[in-house]
Amino acid sequence: MTGRSAVSAVKAALKSQAVETPSWAFGNSGTRFKVFTQPGVPRTPAEKLADAARVHAHTGVAPTVALHIPWDRVDDYAGLADGARELGLRIGAINSNVFQDDDYKLGSVTHPDAAVRRKALGHLLECVDVMDATGSRDLKLWFSDGINYPGQDDISARQGRLAEALSAVYERLGDDQRMLLEYKLFEPAFYATDVPDWGTAYAHCLKLGEKAQVVVDTGHHAPGTNIEFIVALLLREGKLGGFDFNSRFYADDDLMAGAADPFQLFRIMYEVIRGGGYTSRTAFMLDQCHNIEEKIPAIIRSVMNVQEATAKALLVDADALDAAQRSGDVLAANAVLMDAFNTDVRPLVAEARAELGADADPVAAYHASGYGKRIAAERVGGTQAGWGA
Amino acid sequence: MTGRSAVSAVKAALKSQAVETPSWAFGNSGTRFKVFTQPGVPRTPAEKLADAARVHAHTGVAPTVALHIPWDRVDDYAGLADGARELGLRIGAINSNVFQDDDYKLGSVTHPDAAVRRKALGHLLECVDVMDATGSRDLKLWFSDGINYPGQDDISARQGRLAEALSAVYERLGDDQRMLLEYKLFEPAFYATDVPDWGTAYAHCLKLGEKAQVVVDTGHHAPGTNIEFIVALLLREGKLGGFDFNSRFYADDDLMAGAADPFQLFRIMYEVIRGGGYTSRTAFMLDQCHNIEEKIPAIIRSVMNVQEATAKALLVDADALDAAQRSGDVLAANAVLMDAFNTDVRPLVAEARAELGADADPVAAYHASGYGKRIAAERVGGTQAGWGA
Amino acid sequence: MTGRSAVSAVKAALKSQAVETPSWAFGNSGTRFKVFTQPGVPRTPAEKLADAARVHAHTGVAPTVALHIPWDRVDDYAGLADGARELGLRIGAINSNVFQDDDYKLGSVTHPDAAVRRKALGHLLECVDVMDATGSRDLKLWFSDGINYPGQDDISARQGRLAEALSAVYERLGDDQRMLLEYKLFEPAFYATDVPDWGTAYAHCLKLGEKAQVVVDTGHHAPGTNIEFIVALLLREGKLGGFDFNSRFYADDDLMAGAADPFQLFRIMYEVIRGGGYTSRTAFMLDQCHNIEEKIPAIIRSVMNVQEATAKALLVDADALDAAQRSGDVLAANAVLMDAFNTDVRPLVAEARAELGADADPVAAYHASGYGKRIAAERVGGTQAGWGA
Amino acid sequence: MTGRSAVSAVKAALKSQAVETPSWAFGNSGTRFKVFTQPGVPRTPAEKLADAARVHAHTGVAPTVALHIPWDRVDDYAGLADGARELGLRIGAINSNVFQDDDYKLGSVTHPDAAVRRKALGHLLECVDVMDATGSRDLKLWFSDGINYPGQDDISARQGRLAEALSAVYERLGDDQRMLLEYKLFEPAFYATDVPDWGTAYAHCLKLGEKAQVVVDTGHHAPGTNIEFIVALLLREGKLGGFDFNSRFYADDDLMAGAADPFQLFRIMYEVIRGGGYTSRTAFMLDQCHNIEEKIPAIIRSVMNVQEATAKALLVDADALDAAQRSGDVLAANAVLMDAFNTDVRPLVAEARAELGADADPVAAYHASGYGKRIAAERVGGTQAGWGA
Repeated sequence: MTGRSAVSAVKAALKSQAVETPSWAFGNSGTRFKVFTQPGVPRTPAEKLADAARVHAHTGVAPTVALHIPWDRVDDYAGLADGARELGLRIGAINSNVFQDDDYKLGSVTHPDAAVRRKALGHLLECVDVMDATGSRDLKLWFSDGINYPGQDDISARQGRLAEALSAVYERLGDDQRMLLEYKLFEPAFYATDVPDWGTAYAHCLKLGEKAQVVVDTGHHAPGTNIEFIVALLLREGKLGGFDFNSRFYADDDLMAGAADPFQLFRIMYEVIRGGGYTSRTAFMLDQCHNIEEKIPAIIRSVMNVQEATAKALLVDADALDAAQRSGDVLAANAVLMDAFNTDVRPLVAEARAELGADADPVAAYHASGYGKRIAAERVGGTQAGWGA
Repeated sequence: MTGRSAVSAVKAALKSQAVETPSWAFGNSGTRFKVFTQPGVPRTPAEKLADAARVHAHTGVAPTVALHIPWDRVDDYAGLADGARELGLRIGAINSNVFQDDDYKLGSVTHPDAAVRRKALGHLLECVDVMDATGSRDLKLWFSDGINYPGQDDISARQGRLAEALSAVYERLGDDQRMLLEYKLFEPAFYATDVPDWGTAYAHCLKLGEKAQVVVDTGHHAPGTNIEFIVALLLREGKLGGFDFNSRFYADDDLMAGAADPFQLFRIMYEVIRGGGYTSRTAFMLDQCHNIEEKIPAIIRSVMNVQEATAKALLVDADALDAAQRSGDVLAANAVLMDAFNTDVRPLVAEARAELGADADPVAAYHASGYGKRIAAERVGGTQAGWGA
Repeated sequence: MTGRSAVSAVKAALKSQAVETPSWAFGNSGTRFKVFTQPGVPRTPAEKLADAARVHAHTGVAPTVALHIPWDRVDDYAGLADGARELGLRIGAINSNVFQDDDYKLGSVTHPDAAVRRKALGHLLECVDVMDATGSRDLKLWFSDGINYPGQDDISARQGRLAEALSAVYERLGDDQRMLLEYKLFEPAFYATDVPDWGTAYAHCLKLGEKAQVVVDTGHHAPGTNIEFIVALLLREGKLGGFDFNSRFYADDDLMAGAADPFQLFRIMYEVIRGGGYTSRTAFMLDQCHNIEEKIPAIIRSVMNVQEATAKALLVDADALDAAQRSGDVLAANAVLMDAFNTDVRPLVAEARAELGADADPVAAYHASGYGKRIAAERVGGTQAGWGA
Repeated sequence: MTGRSAVSAVKAALKSQAVETPSWAFGNSGTRFKVFTQPGVPRTPAEKLADAARVHAHTGVAPTVALHIPWDRVDDYAGLADGARELGLRIGAINSNVFQDDDYKLGSVTHPDAAVRRKALGHLLECVDVMDATGSRDLKLWFSDGINYPGQDDISARQGRLAEALSAVYERLGDDQRMLLEYKLFEPAFYATDVPDWGTAYAHCLKLGEKAQVVVDTGHHAPGTNIEFIVALLLREGKLGGFDFNSRFYADDDLMAGAADPFQLFRIMYEVIRGGGYTSRTAFMLDQCHNIEEKIPAIIRSVMNVQEATAKALLVDADALDAAQRSGDVLAANAVLMDAFNTDVRPLVAEARAELGADADPVAAYHASGYGKRIAAERVGGTQAGWGA
């Protein structure tokens, strides 16, 4: 695929992209050492939506916002969804939180005590209610459940309790709703996490049924794990539900997507496209935190990084690659991929954005808009949103 | 479980143990930098069996020997098995080798060229013939297949080719034969390995059927991977076929089992016992190399390390552990496990060995036997067995 | 060294041991996700000292307590030291904290802004005042300083600023005071930490002079790092100031010392003894957190783990090891070390403790004492101590 | 720095670049599993030089070739250097090899046996003779020395032996000669390597004097190590002697420089330039192997990758970066770096090459030249060069 028609197909694909922003990325976050606050941080879910709308306005490809319950708990979820629509947004995935109550010290759905498990399940079911009320399609389940010391609890028994809870939630899902199961190597559990890897998530989803899918958080793997391999495999199996994008140099640390290893993000997007996953069935979500950098432009930059990686992946010359692969020409095949990666796609992506009515230079446009200064001046008093750890 | 009856149950369990030795561990091995040879190294499969018989004589729990085809290729496999029986041994797993022919530079069963795939499949089927001839139950499949550079070949297409080959081999298995699929993070493939993790192996085995099982090589994981978690999970799913034991401080490097992290080996054996895997359905195999240390005593020491880890795991007070876990007493639960680990089980294991007619101190007995000096004197000329890389 | 006289030498060495407890381990701690509180947690530095005194009473080898400024800030430090003495304790290392003020978002002594650097330096000098007032010998410096994104600041310029601050603090030290410089791979900085490894700490300490020493935190290394090698090297260079003991399976996570890899702790203690570091010039400190387990017994258990690792290391037969090493007998040399490690030293350590007037079973004695219930009942109201992130 | 003059300064800098190729990269190599051969592989050092000359002809920036003794042993080293000069090349670093004799099983300069140490030292001194004869400036020392098992040998004693050997070699160096000491985390030693990290190499070089410098092999670090930080630090200390470039996804595996993480290579080159290391005092060497890909074009591609990373690093707007760093604008500072990285520098680099009389598209030019086919046809018979493991 070359020439003008190819470029226009790439642009069309870029214009159809949808990257979901996480409501919590607009709030305060930090490390166990310190949470540094910033002026202008939202106090309410509505203010988070307003910030998300700015990201969408500047980039043109961030039309949905993920919620996190209870951080985004409101009395009127339908009203919240209406508010989103007025801002040109939709509610994305509902993220459950069964790790911040004192009861969850030793686990939530895998806790040895059935009462705690019931409470946790109740929360998960409440999240489906929120989905119903907001029109959300996806329930994203991340469990901090695990143990810190060998022997602390029975690994296998915990799997059984997990399966039971997942099954109950699955039964509650509506026809157009999905459950996205996330895995994470460690933290906050420090010896054994109950869903530590894609294999575990896959095994559970397989038993649950087709509405259960695996979500790949790019920061949640052991060092050296080939993430794009997992992506290719899950797509083959029809089990890739989506992504939580972020990046890291060490353990999970929520740097901006594409900031630590832009080549990896490109390879991931290449496998997505190659495997037929570049559709609305795959949720492309950001899940990251901005501890020291300005939050809204950091999210804009992250969306742009995903766009640019996508553009490069779309530019891979599939025919040339296939020919080189079939002929066993290692260097030629690698060169086809690298040619796409080495291309400066920023002008192309800027064009696609402009055609969407968004900004060629979203970060500059954001700064020029004065929005950051305005919210810093207006959002005074109240309690800034945050993780509340 | 305490007191004298408990100890005698532990001893009985220890006496029923069977650790399989790998024929190649008796031969030369090394790194890509250098293979250091030793006097007395076997030149033939029969000599390897003789060495394995010594290990079994001294330890009492190493009754089977794994073969590696073509390294152990002989004209008369039935005769080889007879020879083993005369030495008090049986043939264990048949290990295929589809990585040392020039044709396999870009892969074997996943190679882009169908002719190479056919050749590789032919070898795998030949290995089943060897199983038939030797009475071996298990076909162990490890594939070095993978790619060194992004783009080199299509990750998903390779999965398809792999599935096809596995399926053909599976069909060929007899009623009492199994296929054990091994995974490995990397090496010799340096970008993407076709079976890199337990999830991939599990997904393939699940589709193949109950005769396909996953084998866990303790050296084949990303840094930080919790191996005993995988063991617990595979046992729950009925998919743990066995182990390749060895140990490492860094990447896969084939140190003696239990040498690098004896606590990890203990935790693994605990999960095996806890999950009902301490039966003959689980193959407890060594897969390691002895590059600089004397080979036979290194294998003896490895068998002993597995025995000692098993003894400690058998000593875990299951009732106390269960009570502590149910009550959420983190420290008490951990202490139950640590009490077993901190026990000096060497006298108990020595007793069990003595009751089997083997040696209380197998390494000393080996040295006292003069066997090492004898083979060094006798095995002169010919070509020492090795990997032949 | 064998027989009764050897055992009594080992016991004497064990009885001379001093493990320093960290005041903050008695307070609340957690992860960025959640801090779970416990009843009975100290509200004041004095209450922390009381808890530390319990640990010393039960173990007999925990006579000093490290302070953390400002978490342990009091008006009257001399009075605090007097209070410690009355409890049979001394003040150990003073730990500075230049990471929790809003000013430190982009660094403390390496911050691009000279005003922030001055403030941070002022705090470090204040810590030396606290040393003067409390009789503390060691200033422990850990800097969270670093950057999250490539380009965020100039790596080399930050080293210059760091050197400047360290030099100013060094000049302020009294004749009997030392500066212990700690390194850490990452967290909270996520791209480049200003003192990430022992080499960096060593280079700075070398220039500063002999009162500057490196402190090894066992949790602060890249995966696969051989910590005992670093210990041996620093001892050779006269630059090992001490340890922050803790353990981990993944990244830094502050599990109890010896809990994750007891064999590693043994190897570390072996190198300490081998290198002549088993003296009061080496500070053996715990630096860990107890997020879900009961704190005081967790600290007791950690002290015991250090004791047991030390006992095993002391039992290594130095002559036999030397002979095996000189003869190049890999397996024999390794076996000498493993013999010591496989020994159950709990009876020996219990004896040593009893001879010190402490408890043979410190954890049981602690529970029998009723202390935990008492503080839970008495310490009601006020604000529990914690990191205050 | 912007505009036309800036671009011409960048081009001038690119044209002055010198990337050293390693003679062994033209020979056969592989893993411990298999060495796959290729037609046309050199049989002699002279043929390796001929291949290296092709790389220089096409790229214009590869004027020196590193030798490896004994792999490149010849009777007449002066003649070899003359031959190089006739091809437009010079002899680069002399690489010693004290790991392939049977004597070195337990070490070379750190071996417990003084006779082996003497032999190893003799080889190192012989390498200085080769430097004298060839006009080489740099002696590159990599030691495979280390131990596989805890206790195998005394870590500290080995450091003493190492220091002794290094000192003897240092004394032998001529006025214009340097010693470059390389470090490597592991392999072939699997428990403790005698020079495992930059800190160890630095400590030795510091004591030896200014002719001893550290060489950074980009593949020789623990997972997560920030290599550009080490570069910045060594440059500050005047101790960066040069690089062994290659890349990897897992452990050391010698993929083409820049192939696994082009962003990392860019960051490294940025720190080189920033720290004043972009001079002839820094040796920019490739050290990699081409196991499955065609060798000469793989080396050409690697040189080009270094060029492109350098070009991007040269394009970083230093003033804008400095301003953003001073103002604490995290995102702006990062954006300055990323702008340079995201630039497609291939046209600029092609221009620089063309101005040097080399090829705009070196890989295409190589293939068009027919050289590969010619050597495949001509180099028949004899023994292909390789590692000879």
